[in-house]
Amino acid sequence: MEGKMTDLNGDLLTIEQISGARQVLQTSGLCFHTPVLHHVQTLCGLDSDIDLYLKLENMQNTGSFKIRGLVNQMTHISDSAVRGQTHLISMSCGNFGKAFAYMVQQKGLKGTVFMPDTASASRAELIKSYGVGVKMVPMAELEPAVNKCLMDSNTMNLFHDNIDVMAGNGSVGLEILEDVPDPDVVVVCCGGGGLLGGTAAAIKLSGRSNTRVYGVEPEGAPSMYESRKAVKPVVVQGKTKVLGLAPPYTGYNAFRLNVEFVDDVVLVSDDEIVAAVKRLFSRGLVVEPAGAAAFAAVMSGKIPDVKGKKVVVVITGGNVTTQELNKICG
Amino acid sequence: MEGKMTDLNGDLLTIEQISGARQVLQTSGLCFHTPVLHHVQTLCGLDSDIDLYLKLENMQNTGSFKIRGLVNQMTHISDSAVRGQTHLISMSCGNFGKAFAYMVQQKGLKGTVFMPDTASASRAELIKSYGVGVKMVPMAELEPAVNKCLMDSNTMNLFHDNIDVMAGNGSVGLEILEDVPDPDVVVVCCGGGGLLGGTAAAIKLSGRSNTRVYGVEPEGAPSMYESRKAVKPVVVQGKTKVLGLAPPYTGYNAFRLNVEFVDDVVLVSDDEIVAAVKRLFSRGLVVEPAGAAAFAAVMSGKIPDVKGKKVVVVITGGNVTTQELNKICG
Repeated sequence: MEGKMTDLNGDLLTIEQISGARQVLQTSGLCFHTPVLHHVQTLCGLDSDIDLYLKLENMQNTGSFKIRGLVNQMTHISDSAVRGQTHLISMSCGNFGKAFAYMVQQKGLKGTVFMPDTASASRAELIKSYGVGVKMVPMAELEPAVNKCLMDSNTMNLFHDNIDVMAGNGSVGLEILEDVPDPDVVVVCCGGGGLLGGTAAAIKLSGRSNTRVYGVEPEGAPSMYESRKAVKPVVVQGKTKVLGLAPPYTGYNAFRLNVEFVDDVVLVSDDEIVAAVKRLFSRGLVVEPAGAAAFAAVMSGKIPDVKGKKVVVVITGGNVTTQELNKICG
Repeated sequence: MEGKMTDLNGDLLTIEQISGARQVLQTSGLCFHTPVLHHVQTLCGLDSDIDLYLKLENMQNTGSFKIRGLVNQMTHISDSAVRGQTHLISMSCGNFGKAFAYMVQQKGLKGTVFMPDTASASRAELIKSYGVGVKMVPMAELEPAVNKCLMDSNTMNLFHDNIDVMAGNGSVGLEILEDVPDPDVVVVCCGGGGLLGGTAAAIKLSGRSNTRVYGVEPEGAPSMYESRKAVKPVVVQGKTKVLGLAPPYTGYNAFRLNVEFVDDVVLVSDDEIVAAVKRLFSRGLVVEPAGAAAFAAVMSGKIPDVKGKKVVVVITGGNVTTQELNKICG
């Protein structure tokens, strides 16, 4: 985990790193500038005074933003990995794993995804379909299993709490400013916090110090919320059905970016997230629960001072099967 | 059916009628300018040389474009109906009926929808939830049942093949030109043909004579395609699962507009439509089969000369339950 230690002692993310990541992504052919929907507040059943923008990362390649961080991370790892001599491993209950598997396949590499055994079988099958191995492990044994695997010198962990990942995620913030140059509010869900931290850094470091950036967590997995209160990363045992937003721990880098660049973190209930998924589905958008949390926060009035303001809500993923939607919306 | 006879002998649709309808819609509070997605050709798995725009009528109030025509039609009917003294009736297997029921409820009127008994139970339940009556009738008995009901002088049929409906639908064309001033190609699905005719009229009458407008029908219900060949409206017995694009007959007004303003009508198979629904779902958009036909035509290469061209595809509806999607995509 050499990279992680370097990150811990390194500088915080810079705008040059984010701009550099954006260029990497633009030439990769693996991920794309996603569209922004505008003038949809009334259609989405929100207060007509909110000037709403929906940034559609559910339309992104692999169905979520995760590919952004991974593609950038891949440009910074060792030559032996790039040549396929290293076995890449990843820990994910879903979207990161899917994006990892897709990227590993596209680049002709070798990889394995470690997943908590609470993750859905459909996600495991999807990841296997890219020719990547899947190991289902009880949540408590996940990190030990990964660490054991890493003792083989020919393995490398593409971990989440990584500055290159966050720089890649930060491209979301640059794209937002390209399409909406002067947002008053940007709302992003928070799982591990890498998208939130990267996006907030991109916006604030681009000179938009007055743009308020909010993170949104489930009430049952308030790890960043509690970490901000404790002024250090804390571990919270998740009690939410929205697994994509219930990370096993709060990463140090994500926490540092959060303290530096995020204005506040608010909490939404699982029921509010489900209501958001239903609302968005009824308006023609496929959004998974984790991807709907930011919208849920606006819909349930958790974000302050939004009337008359330009509010950008990041819809982070649409990886939900019709069967799962049936259970949620049926 | 007094209005229909007047329409049959009247002028074709004018740009003033469409602009007037647009103003009616803008002040109605019942339907909205829907967003256009741009730069999504690669994300949607199409040739990167196609400059694709998706006009999202699946985000429209009531989940489809149908509310546009109905709201305009309501401004042209008799005072007694507006005062709620007339019982309004409508014939629809789905979206027109839903929009009709919503409008009847919003305006505090009385109404009944006649549906073919092949329509899904979920659609009937939805329409009833607006406080509107539903009568399920075998397809062959649908028009006689409506006609029998119309013998009561206090009933009025809000029929489809109506110039006011088509003027309202034409607002889609005006919105397209507002967001994409110089489209090379516009692709619209064709059921009864009222959206296609209205949209094509709006585009051509706005001076865009070089914009090619295509209609798309299922191979199993090629009523407009065959009508164009026969140079008169013909009845085709539908053999498609896409019921929303299998009208019981071709309307005379829709046919006249089609001949005047539509460049060509192309056919897609049910399988191509299903593939389009799946593709759009995987890219975060909820689209019902009927609403995906135009995209299916582009996806399957049925629209000629689209490389390097600005191609606007109208996504007409998203009224599909999670159960139905499960059957289609599962």
